[in-house]
Amino acid sequence: MWHKRDDMIVHETDPYNAEPPRLGLHDPITTPDSFYVRNHGPVPENDPGDWAVTVDGLVDESASFTPERLREEFTHHTLTATMQCAGNRRAGFLPVRDIPGEDPWGPGATSTAPWTGARLCDVLRSVGVADGARHVEFTASDVSDLADPPQAYGGSIPLAKALSSEVLLAWAMNSEPLPLVHGAPVRVVVPGYVGARSVKWLRGITVRADPSENYFQATAYRVLPPEADPDHAGPGDGISLGSVALNCDILSPEEHEHVPGGPVRVTGYAYAGDDRTVARMDVSGDDGRTWHQAELDAAASPWAWQHWEALVPVTGAGSHVLMARAWDSTGACQPESPRALWNPKGYVNNSWARVEVTVE
Amino acid sequence: MWHKRDDMIVHETDPYNAEPPRLGLHDPITTPDSFYVRNHGPVPENDPGDWAVTVDGLVDESASFTPERLREEFTHHTLTATMQCAGNRRAGFLPVRDIPGEDPWGPGATSTAPWTGARLCDVLRSVGVADGARHVEFTASDVSDLADPPQAYGGSIPLAKALSSEVLLAWAMNSEPLPLVHGAPVRVVVPGYVGARSVKWLRGITVRADPSENYFQATAYRVLPPEADPDHAGPGDGISLGSVALNCDILSPEEHEHVPGGPVRVTGYAYAGDDRTVARMDVSGDDGRTWHQAELDAAASPWAWQHWEALVPVTGAGSHVLMARAWDSTGACQPESPRALWNPKGYVNNSWARVEVTVE
Repeated sequence: MWHKRDDMIVHETDPYNAEPPRLGLHDPITTPDSFYVRNHGPVPENDPGDWAVTVDGLVDESASFTPERLREEFTHHTLTATMQCAGNRRAGFLPVRDIPGEDPWGPGATSTAPWTGARLCDVLRSVGVADGARHVEFTASDVSDLADPPQAYGGSIPLAKALSSEVLLAWAMNSEPLPLVHGAPVRVVVPGYVGARSVKWLRGITVRADPSENYFQATAYRVLPPEADPDHAGPGDGISLGSVALNCDILSPEEHEHVPGGPVRVTGYAYAGDDRTVARMDVSGDDGRTWHQAELDAAASPWAWQHWEALVPVTGAGSHVLMARAWDSTGACQPESPRALWNPKGYVNNSWARVEVTVE
Repeated sequence: MWHKRDDMIVHETDPYNAEPPRLGLHDPITTPDSFYVRNHGPVPENDPGDWAVTVDGLVDESASFTPERLREEFTHHTLTATMQCAGNRRAGFLPVRDIPGEDPWGPGATSTAPWTGARLCDVLRSVGVADGARHVEFTASDVSDLADPPQAYGGSIPLAKALSSEVLLAWAMNSEPLPLVHGAPVRVVVPGYVGARSVKWLRGITVRADPSENYFQATAYRVLPPEADPDHAGPGDGISLGSVALNCDILSPEEHEHVPGGPVRVTGYAYAGDDRTVARMDVSGDDGRTWHQAELDAAASPWAWQHWEALVPVTGAGSHVLMARAWDSTGACQPESPRALWNPKGYVNNSWARVEVTVE
């Protein structure tokens, strides 16, 4: 049904949820067999021959687009964009406090690919956006029993974002047809937003006055205060997630790797969602006492992560913590510790990256 | 030449640099006599009869606008927007390390007013923006000897921001003619950006391919790494400041105030620049061990700060540190400590707010 690298870290098999090891993230473009997968229900067994995406709600005229019609009627665009799960780096919260019922995603719940498809703004303009429109809802065909009662996965984005040039209805990834596990035949790609809004197996687009009432928009994917009981959270509780917060992680060395003393080559990724960019990257080899600026690679697009590299002195046999922190284009830095950021669903751990290594 | 409240905290008299005490910031709209002032040179003694703003560079046709012509030819718009200096809360850095040559701004280098003027986008469209335009430079008439050789103050913003509906060429503040110390007869107001880009005493607008080469854009108002020597920083060094980073402070109680034990009413402001909003506000009365969510007032506009209030238990006679931290609409929180954020010019101290009080 899909092919992933053998060393994929599988958090769940049903629904399939998996992230690549750090090794799978070393390149600016993630290969499809390394690309992380976050599912909320079984991958639907779709018959592409029967597929259509309806567009309705606050539009001048409702319409229905088969994948062929999307390809034929709209200009094709390819954009390299990073997808990042709101739960990326959740495992960093676990030393603070356990997070029952949620997968312990490491630094691999993020990946980058060139996506090809039609611009959502072109599709919306073709049907006409009516007065009062403020949000655009996406509905998928995968049904999740995380919602009670079970519900098709869905979510929404503000109309202004939907009308931006970067949001795609994509049918290809890495110049190949979109794999089923990544949302074939058609998925949404919302660059700069948490992955949850990039709805796969897209069946419906509804232009609305208000955000979607779908469970995954109204109730899930929200940062609750630490004292909240997520089992009793209601629609509207907490902070609804949209743009991705500034984040980074270390890709090499690996956690618990043995390294020779002296300068250690430290690499990683950094990403700032939406209109922010990564402006500086600091790396420390002495538990944060001194910091060295990393070389930042150019981003493949304004919507893609950046890889970085630094040579950092690590001296003295024994255990050392390598640390990394990103600064964004507002001059703001990531928060230091996951302690203050812990929340009941484990979202947005954007604290400084830490990897423990042993100097031989 | 201008009137400010008697208890203004004057950091410098020449050029005049002053912030209101916390008391002056309690209202959603700051009165003109409380509004902070950040100058880089003497307030120019302008003859408004002789005033004109030239628009040139990458435009279809250069033009020159007297204040009267701006008023007559363009629709008037009023927008409530917060102005925030990049050095707001700099004093919080001083316990970490001294910052020679810079004023120790407290939490009052921020204020909010309704501004009235013409939209910059309307003015730019009237002259036509030419191909290749990417940035819009503003030049003032105040000359600063912080630059060597002394230079008229200036800066620039990206064209996309300049074409947004929120950037104004303002001639009024709080429904009154703009006071001279705040930039009369015409100033720029760039909501969501650090105050440095809201150029006062505006004389020139130049549409450019690149950011301004003015000292205050190319060299100053940049976050340098801690080891940098600001006296030898060159153009392009460090992170150029644009959008304001998420920030907050406590307005009441005052620092070192004596309070009765029990629930203490804590108030303050919070602000997220550009497209972010303040999504949650936490307050602690026990040095950060437990946190209480504050009530957030509605913002006067998408470009204005929000005031907040919480009743927080503070128990046990003696010294206590009240703390406050804001969360933005991406689910990200402010960094905890100023220690990691210290930089040679003392910009962007957006660490958690702290006020020490004594319980009687």
